[in-house]
Amino acid sequence: MPSRYLSFRCSVPWFILLLETLFLIRFFFCFPGAGNIYSPSNRYPEFQDVHHMVIFGFGFFLMVLRRYGFSSTGLNFLLIVLGVQCCVVVEDLLLFFFLSCSLGKALVSMTAVAISTGAVLGKANPLQLIVMSLVELIIFYVSRCINRTFLQVPDHLTLMHVHLFGAYFGVAVTSRFPEPPPGLDKNRSSPKSDLFSMLGTVFVWVFWPSFNSLLADSKEKAVLNTYLALAVSAVAAFMLSALTSKDGKFRMTHIHSAVLAGGVTISYTAQSIQHPWIAMILGLLGSVITVLGSHCLQRCFNPAFKLQDTSGVHFTFGLPAVLGAVAAVVLHVIEEGISTRWNSLSSLGYLIFVDIGAFCQTISTALLTGLITGLILNIKLLKTLHVSKYFDDQFYWEVSF
Amino acid sequence: MPSRYLSFRCSVPWFILLLETLFLIRFFFCFPGAGNIYSPSNRYPEFQDVHHMVIFGFGFFLMVLRRYGFSSTGLNFLLIVLGVQCCVVVEDLLLFFFLSCSLGKALVSMTAVAISTGAVLGKANPLQLIVMSLVELIIFYVSRCINRTFLQVPDHLTLMHVHLFGAYFGVAVTSRFPEPPPGLDKNRSSPKSDLFSMLGTVFVWVFWPSFNSLLADSKEKAVLNTYLALAVSAVAAFMLSALTSKDGKFRMTHIHSAVLAGGVTISYTAQSIQHPWIAMILGLLGSVITVLGSHCLQRCFNPAFKLQDTSGVHFTFGLPAVLGAVAAVVLHVIEEGISTRWNSLSSLGYLIFVDIGAFCQTISTALLTGLITGLILNIKLLKTLHVSKYFDDQFYWEVSF
Amino acid sequence: MPSRYLSFRCSVPWFILLLETLFLIRFFFCFPGAGNIYSPSNRYPEFQDVHHMVIFGFGFFLMVLRRYGFSSTGLNFLLIVLGVQCCVVVEDLLLFFFLSCSLGKALVSMTAVAISTGAVLGKANPLQLIVMSLVELIIFYVSRCINRTFLQVPDHLTLMHVHLFGAYFGVAVTSRFPEPPPGLDKNRSSPKSDLFSMLGTVFVWVFWPSFNSLLADSKEKAVLNTYLALAVSAVAAFMLSALTSKDGKFRMTHIHSAVLAGGVTISYTAQSIQHPWIAMILGLLGSVITVLGSHCLQRCFNPAFKLQDTSGVHFTFGLPAVLGAVAAVVLHVIEEGISTRWNSLSSLGYLIFVDIGAFCQTISTALLTGLITGLILNIKLLKTLHVSKYFDDQFYWEVSF
Repeated sequence: MPSRYLSFRCSVPWFILLLETLFLIRFFFCFPGAGNIYSPSNRYPEFQDVHHMVIFGFGFFLMVLRRYGFSSTGLNFLLIVLGVQCCVVVEDLLLFFFLSCSLGKALVSMTAVAISTGAVLGKANPLQLIVMSLVELIIFYVSRCINRTFLQVPDHLTLMHVHLFGAYFGVAVTSRFPEPPPGLDKNRSSPKSDLFSMLGTVFVWVFWPSFNSLLADSKEKAVLNTYLALAVSAVAAFMLSALTSKDGKFRMTHIHSAVLAGGVTISYTAQSIQHPWIAMILGLLGSVITVLGSHCLQRCFNPAFKLQDTSGVHFTFGLPAVLGAVAAVVLHVIEEGISTRWNSLSSLGYLIFVDIGAFCQTISTALLTGLITGLILNIKLLKTLHVSKYFDDQFYWEVSF
Repeated sequence: MPSRYLSFRCSVPWFILLLETLFLIRFFFCFPGAGNIYSPSNRYPEFQDVHHMVIFGFGFFLMVLRRYGFSSTGLNFLLIVLGVQCCVVVEDLLLFFFLSCSLGKALVSMTAVAISTGAVLGKANPLQLIVMSLVELIIFYVSRCINRTFLQVPDHLTLMHVHLFGAYFGVAVTSRFPEPPPGLDKNRSSPKSDLFSMLGTVFVWVFWPSFNSLLADSKEKAVLNTYLALAVSAVAAFMLSALTSKDGKFRMTHIHSAVLAGGVTISYTAQSIQHPWIAMILGLLGSVITVLGSHCLQRCFNPAFKLQDTSGVHFTFGLPAVLGAVAAVVLHVIEEGISTRWNSLSSLGYLIFVDIGAFCQTISTALLTGLITGLILNIKLLKTLHVSKYFDDQFYWEVSF
Repeated sequence: MPSRYLSFRCSVPWFILLLETLFLIRFFFCFPGAGNIYSPSNRYPEFQDVHHMVIFGFGFFLMVLRRYGFSSTGLNFLLIVLGVQCCVVVEDLLLFFFLSCSLGKALVSMTAVAISTGAVLGKANPLQLIVMSLVELIIFYVSRCINRTFLQVPDHLTLMHVHLFGAYFGVAVTSRFPEPPPGLDKNRSSPKSDLFSMLGTVFVWVFWPSFNSLLADSKEKAVLNTYLALAVSAVAAFMLSALTSKDGKFRMTHIHSAVLAGGVTISYTAQSIQHPWIAMILGLLGSVITVLGSHCLQRCFNPAFKLQDTSGVHFTFGLPAVLGAVAAVVLHVIEEGISTRWNSLSSLGYLIFVDIGAFCQTISTALLTGLITGLILNIKLLKTLHVSKYFDDQFYWEVSF
């Protein structure tokens, strides 16, 4: 199909060039903001950790398909670097909403894009991915502004909705893509791709304490709680994988997903949990919900709702984030209740309303805008891939064997 | 053998669940200890380095077998996260021995488990590995307590016996396992596994200065000495590999082992050596003893004593640690002798007695308890693998080709 | 050819041993210098980043050939550790030129060797590589001394000529090697080697801000400018790769080269640029010159001048460094001109003379000494490889399939 090739060739680089020009113009004219971008990330080692985790870790974490290695790492890289610049621009344009801007926050926001990319992995072409990531970033930013302005959620907590938003946005987008044919061999993993994916997973796992503590006030507590939750969820991942899979063998996809569940679950509460055992319980529950979710969803829920979720971001990031949000509400209420001796029930009710409100607002915005984005992405203009071309590097990369 | 499969399936996850429950209960009840676990690791970047080294570096360092990649990284990961929690529990239970507890120390202790795992790599099933690592951690802790209480060895030096203990414990355990049949192809490496192993080795190498300086008082000196020893041992590794192997070619296994020898040798003395050339000499000797050890042991010693040591931990970590312990005694005595002008020979004698005592106590405890552990691991209850199933991922993992 | 094997076997290890002995003797006798080597690298996390980048990043970055993986990582490792020691010795011997010495600077200097190695990758045997790297280090040091003494260039800026020097030295050396036969299959990449190379590239990319800020005075500004330049050049790399390659597909070699171009281009000016958009423009131009250079050079220039440049260091590091040097002059002049209101044109002229002089001195020294080194390396004594043995691990390593 030479015409499609050519049109693809025409569109992607020019679209990127247009974006870069916009970024440059904005950086050129925005003299007052310049000092703001230079704002200190005086936690340089943590910033580097998160940087490493998002670029390298997620890039290789997504390498689960046997013939999609170049695209998994390469396109993830492209989306992140494009998105970070976009973040800085967006945050600066909307500065009157009082959300300060820094490279660290931009990187954390990019996790949403990396997660959503996992959901449409192998189905969307680069142009669709770029449009998706830009739309997602802007909507996530707007959603954060709403939480911040109307519900008075602190800034760093609004940022922690990143997993929830990314997963449900991605799931909603991918539901509008045509389904791959059932007998396809290319959407499976190979031992080599599993090893590279394990490499990325371990990177993400190791750097997760830095991720959760980058914006926290009490860094030390955030690191310890995250570490314990991650440790328990990693142990539980092996346990549950052996329990649920055939013949009691470990399954690599379970391990990949469930070892990270603890970090997602604890993300809302890492800096406020007082007792390490609560962090451990949350890690355990996160792992349980991920492995059971993977087991049940893939058999019952996904076929019924025609969901396809290539690298399983729904149960890897979505479900643990829901659990984490619920746990955050419960822990917040208990803490407040104890400190006020359960006297001011009305203020407790308001607290619950705010926390649940922020959660519902985020998830419904993600689902709704994800569906709309999915519809937009599948118009003819954006050159949707034919399903027979799914999950294959050769359509985007010059591959020499 | 479906019955074995099933029994394996029944045992591993439930055993892990039991352990996790115990950890949780202890974390729940131990309110006074909570503050202790939160104890500051104010050297967060170094902590992250060691974390990365133990989880990622050793995981991929162990990937030397052609069909055992999933297990090498996956099970190493499981053992480390389980062991770190166990460490915290054990240290807290034995707190009356005045060994303070922190995540950093727990991670350093876990190196012993990673090393021992290397010795039984591919032979022990996950259940045996978990039992082995728990037993090893407790015994290593007891051995440290003896050194600390009866021989007055400083706390951070007791921890540096970790390589010595891990290597000889592992060698003793593996000697009780049935021998693999001679014509087996699976216990060799492939170019792919060698590359992944090289990746892990380079990670361990790069982070070793952080490892040696994590608990040191004079961090700067520890980093520099370790760096020089590592640099010299890496250079010597290439030199000796070309000298000892057929046709003067480099051999990957030599490089893997010998580049790390300098870090092991210097571990006892990194923070006390005054002159960089001493560190360099130690690095050189460490590399020499490793390559010669690998050359001689595998031909003469191992067949005679029926030792099997899959990834060569005896000469990679055992022999350099012995050399390092001896060098520590010599350097300590010379330093003390010079400062007292060789007048108080009795105090020098006492010094030698203490240092040699700590060394002998550690190595004999490791060998003795290792043998007993090896015997226990091979009882029917723990479902020993048949030798024909050695070195193969497929017995533990769902592998799709 | 057993005689060649044997002579190779005889020469490499003994040569390494000789070098190590020299280093040890110098470290033994140089007591006054000892304090100097212990000089604080109080920026330990940045030092570790650069360490990681040079050893691990470049090692895997160079893994572009399908049958040369062991040599790419292994020999890069050997050269770096040998070179760091050599650096410390050389810097100490020439201390009367007032260049202070530290491990950090030694590591930065080693980048030149890693880059030059890329140019002769697969053609030079280990002995030639070692000789080349030692000669290169000494000449680079002398070139820095000239810049420092006669042109009064600040010390950290002389070090930033490292990419320029490394690339042109390597190109000059490789032009003296016999050409590989045209139909050779081994000097191409495979998907596996491309993935490993991508892994290394991402490592180098992530750690580049640490590299540029290690020796900078205003660290924060250096990090931000480098980050923005890298981000833009990564985006531009994908854009230009799709524009220039056939069918609009991405080409892995373009991505590998061009994502790093921004870091090279900005290296001279990272700490002095005041406006982020200038850094972004430089990153964009660096990427453009790399991809266009790769496109044009490989078709027109290289065949005409009989240049062979295995991993494309000329357009990856050489051209962006030239661009960066020119940009540094222009920016420096504009800045000075604005601050003096363009009154003292004579001082501006002197400024231009000095900056251009340092640039021309570095590049001409690199080319001239590179040519001479290339001629010396190809004498019979150093056992040049026959062209049919190029690009193959099996000549240097015991490879088991």
